[in-house]
Amino acid sequence: MTRLVNVRYLTGYTGSNGALLVPVDPAAPDVLCTDGRYVTQVGRQAPDLDLLVDRASAAALAARVTGGRLGYETHDVTVDLHAVLAERAAGAELVSVQRAVEALRAVKDDAEVALLRQACAIADRALAELIEAGGLRAGRTEREVGRDLDARMLELGADARSFETIVATGPDSAVPHHRPTDRVLARGDLVKLDFGATVGGYHSDMTRTLVLGEPAGWQREIYELVRAAQRAGREALEPGADVRAVDSAARDVVAAGGYGEEFLHGLGHGVGLEIHEAPALSPLAAGTLADRMAVTVEPGVYLAGRGGVRIEDTLVVRDGAEPDLLTTTTKDLVVL
Amino acid sequence: MTRLVNVRYLTGYTGSNGALLVPVDPAAPDVLCTDGRYVTQVGRQAPDLDLLVDRASAAALAARVTGGRLGYETHDVTVDLHAVLAERAAGAELVSVQRAVEALRAVKDDAEVALLRQACAIADRALAELIEAGGLRAGRTEREVGRDLDARMLELGADARSFETIVATGPDSAVPHHRPTDRVLARGDLVKLDFGATVGGYHSDMTRTLVLGEPAGWQREIYELVRAAQRAGREALEPGADVRAVDSAARDVVAAGGYGEEFLHGLGHGVGLEIHEAPALSPLAAGTLADRMAVTVEPGVYLAGRGGVRIEDTLVVRDGAEPDLLTTTTKDLVVL
Repeated sequence: MTRLVNVRYLTGYTGSNGALLVPVDPAAPDVLCTDGRYVTQVGRQAPDLDLLVDRASAAALAARVTGGRLGYETHDVTVDLHAVLAERAAGAELVSVQRAVEALRAVKDDAEVALLRQACAIADRALAELIEAGGLRAGRTEREVGRDLDARMLELGADARSFETIVATGPDSAVPHHRPTDRVLARGDLVKLDFGATVGGYHSDMTRTLVLGEPAGWQREIYELVRAAQRAGREALEPGADVRAVDSAARDVVAAGGYGEEFLHGLGHGVGLEIHEAPALSPLAAGTLADRMAVTVEPGVYLAGRGGVRIEDTLVVRDGAEPDLLTTTTKDLVVL
Repeated sequence: MTRLVNVRYLTGYTGSNGALLVPVDPAAPDVLCTDGRYVTQVGRQAPDLDLLVDRASAAALAARVTGGRLGYETHDVTVDLHAVLAERAAGAELVSVQRAVEALRAVKDDAEVALLRQACAIADRALAELIEAGGLRAGRTEREVGRDLDARMLELGADARSFETIVATGPDSAVPHHRPTDRVLARGDLVKLDFGATVGGYHSDMTRTLVLGEPAGWQREIYELVRAAQRAGREALEPGADVRAVDSAARDVVAAGGYGEEFLHGLGHGVGLEIHEAPALSPLAAGTLADRMAVTVEPGVYLAGRGGVRIEDTLVVRDGAEPDLLTTTTKDLVVL
C-alpha cells in the first residue's frame, strides 16, 4: 500500500512518508518502509511490523518482490512511480488491488465511531459557545468568525480542524465552498457555517445555516425546503440502500420545491480518517450502504447573488435501527 | 495540469477539484474544468479563463484534445487516471510535462515573498507571545502548548497553520517529527517547537529548541553544534550553489562535532504554496539554487531516549546579497 491514510488504517503509523508490503503468506510479517525521521515513531506506533529504512519507500519494498504478483494501488501510484516499481520488482507482475483498503475503511468499528462522536461533539459545542458568546453578530468579518470557531474547537480538545472552515454570509452563502473573506456580517444575512474537528485522525463534518435578524420569506422558504430534504436523506439511510436512491430521496424533495437546479452537488460522502471517503451519496456514484458506514447528509439550495442554505449532519448507518446522529446541533432555523 | 497547487499557481483558482488545459497556441485561452460547486468561485478568482463544468475534470479536458500531443503531469496522474486520459484523448500522444510548474514555483516574485514574510512574522510573534505569557512552563502538556501556539497564530491573522504543530519535549525531542502528546513538560527538558502559519496560501516554517531550566552540558553541546551547522548552511545559500553542497556545508559541521549519525534528514526544502516543494537541500537531491528561491535550513541532532535539537529558518536566496532571513526569532539558546 502506498496511500498513507491506508497505511495508517492498517498499521497505526502516521508519518508523512511510508509504504506497506503485505506478503501473501499470512505467517510472514508485514513490512513497513519509511525514512530515518520516523524510525522512533514506527517503534512506538507499529512495533510488530518489520521495518525497512529507505526514503524511496515504495521502490525499496518493490525491490523485495522477486516473483509472483505485486498488488499496488492504481488510484494512488503515479505514472512516474509505476515506472519505478515495474523496474524494481522486475520478476513480478504488477496488478491493481483496486480500492480494497478504502472499502474496509468505509465500515467503522466501535473505536472509530467513538472518535467520530468525540469530534462531532466538539464541533457542536464550539458552535454553541460561539453563539452564546455573541460571536455571530453584525459587524464581525467572516474571517473573524472562522478563526473564533477554529480556536474554540482547538480549545475543546480537537487535534485540528477537519478542513478550512467555511463561513459564508449574505450573497457569499450562495457559494457552496466559499472561503472566509473580510466581508462584514450584516442584518438580514444568511450565515452558513461548514466546519469540523479531528480527534485521533477522525473527522467530523457539520453545516448549519442561521439568519441574522428576522428571516425574509425567501430565506425561510429555502431553509424549510432544505431541512425537509435533509430529513428525507437521513431517513433513507439504511443497510442495503442504493447510494443513488439515498441521494434521490433528498434531491426529489428539493426538485419538487422548484429548486432542483440550485442543488449543485451530491448529497453526502463517507467520513473517517479522510474528510471525503467512501461511500459517495451522489447521482454519479454506485454501491449500497452497509451497517456502520459513517456518512454526511448535506443538501443545499444556492441562489446566486442572493444567498444559500445547506444543512449537514454526520451519521452512522445502523442495522435495524435509526442511523446514529453524531452532530446534534438543532436544525430548527436559528434567528440571531 | 492536474496538480491542484499548480493549477492554483497558474490561475489563482483554489477549489478542491479542477484541471487546466493550456493550448499550444498562445492566442487560445486556457481552459479550466471543475464541477458545479465552484462555478461562482472561478468567476471571481479566474474570470479570464474558459470554463468547462464537469466533475471528472481532467478526463473532460482530455476529451477536447483530438490530435497532436497532450502534456500531463506524470508525477501526479495516477495509473487509473492515465488509462482514462489515454482513452479520452484518443487521437493524441500523451507526453510528460515533467515538473515544469514546480520549477517555475521554486522562484518567488515579490508578491510571493511578501506573503511568506507575513506568514513568518506571524510565527515569530506567536512564539514571542507564547513565551511572554508563560506558555512554556513545567506542568503543561505538549498538546496544550501546541494548541496555544496554533490559537495565537490564528489570532494574529494566519489563515491556518502550515502543518500539524510539533511540540516535542524531553526524550520526545529526539523524535524529528513528533506529534504532541499528553506528556507534561518538566524542568530539564529540551522543548522543540516546529510550526508555521499560512497567509494567502504561502507557508512559513520555523523550528526553535529551548530548554526548561539550566541546560545540562550535553544539551548545551548539541545546541551549539546545531547552531553552528545551521549558520554554515545559511551562509552557503547563494545563486548557483549545488543543493548537495549546501547540505554538506551544515552536515560537515555536525559530523566534525561527532554527531553525523544523529542528523537523520536533509538540511532543508523549498517552501511556498506547499510546505515542502522544490528545491530539496539534501545529499539525495540534485540541482542548483537560484535568485529568489525560498528554502528552509534546518539541521538537527537527535539522541534517542535523551533529547534532540533542531534549529530552522525560512530564507530567500538573493543574488549578490545575504539571503533574506524571514524568521527572525533569536537563535541564542533560550533558557526558560
